[in-house]
Amino acid sequence: MPPAGRRPGPSRTREAVLDAARAEFAARGYDAVTLRRVAARAGVDPAMVTHHFGSKSGLFRAVLDVRLDPAAELAAVLTGPLDTVAERLLTRLLVLWDSPAGAATIAAVRTALQDEDGTALLRDLALSQVLRPLAAALTGPEEERRWRVDLVASQVVGLLMTRYVLGLEPLASARHPALVGALGPTLQRYLTGPLPAASVEP
Amino acid sequence: MPPAGRRPGPSRTREAVLDAARAEFAARGYDAVTLRRVAARAGVDPAMVTHHFGSKSGLFRAVLDVRLDPAAELAAVLTGPLDTVAERLLTRLLVLWDSPAGAATIAAVRTALQDEDGTALLRDLALSQVLRPLAAALTGPEEERRWRVDLVASQVVGLLMTRYVLGLEPLASARHPALVGALGPTLQRYLTGPLPAASVEP
Repeated sequence: MPPAGRRPGPSRTREAVLDAARAEFAARGYDAVTLRRVAARAGVDPAMVTHHFGSKSGLFRAVLDVRLDPAAELAAVLTGPLDTVAERLLTRLLVLWDSPAGAATIAAVRTALQDEDGTALLRDLALSQVLRPLAAALTGPEEERRWRVDLVASQVVGLLMTRYVLGLEPLASARHPALVGALGPTLQRYLTGPLPAASVEP
Repeated sequence: MPPAGRRPGPSRTREAVLDAARAEFAARGYDAVTLRRVAARAGVDPAMVTHHFGSKSGLFRAVLDVRLDPAAELAAVLTGPLDTVAERLLTRLLVLWDSPAGAATIAAVRTALQDEDGTALLRDLALSQVLRPLAAALTGPEEERRWRVDLVASQVVGLLMTRYVLGLEPLASARHPALVGALGPTLQRYLTGPLPAASVEP
């Protein structure tokens, strides 16, 4: 038995913070969560949260076991002309997904999809780390930019599911240039081409 | 207690056949399964399998709890010119998915994705009921037709995931004509437009 009153060790602290963060993100959504609340819920000092996870987005990715930093990757892709961004985005995505960290991330996505809480966290992750920053880099009214990035998501998520989860052939074994040549024009049109308005249900 | 030697009732027979079919489909894949083997495994007469489920594809859809008949729907969509098939396909898909049977099917797809056996069944269902028949309706070499239908799957599966599972807005609430206008040209290009070859990894 450990001595009474002893503080939890680093790995128990890390687990307690992850448990508290999972509950907070699920209950409140990404935007409303603060590191201070997570720390209070875990019964640790807020500095410990920063020490272990760096930032709210780092904590969030740790909760989902996402071993890539989508926001940083996207920022790198966006440094270049917008009229060729689809090709850079797709090339980068394929390199990441085909790496060991990508395989772990895809496994984490699949696990998260198994229940409503995990799915909501995944939606929050996509919105906060990828879709909103991507929308901010586009031109046009905000509603139109949100519609454009949702369309991009519909093709990118489908590529992930068919290539890595369902393993449909020949798509699962297709080389990157073939995928970029086939899907790149789709993404570029969704981002910057002419499109009908979303015309949402009232 | 039921009298000794009494035959199982209709609902127990149905359950026994479904259990046997689930095991056979998971072990052998769709093509190699026969109704005779499923009946033998369930300990019932093959005529009972036909009586309850109609056909191998009916049995398969019952195993996956898919309440639509994708092959029949696809056949209806394919009666018309190939250069406008994407619009008909997408319009029909959206009507089906937005129906109560569609919602049940999407829930079944999501459940199937939770393990490897379910995912393999889903891939078999997609191939046997939709992708191979669709490929057969296209022109060009077989490898190219398989590549084209995989690309269609990548966009269609992604639409399903982002609209119905992740619920990304405004896409989740977008009206059908907006979705058909945005995604239709993508699908039509994948089916009949110019594309780079798949160029598969050796």
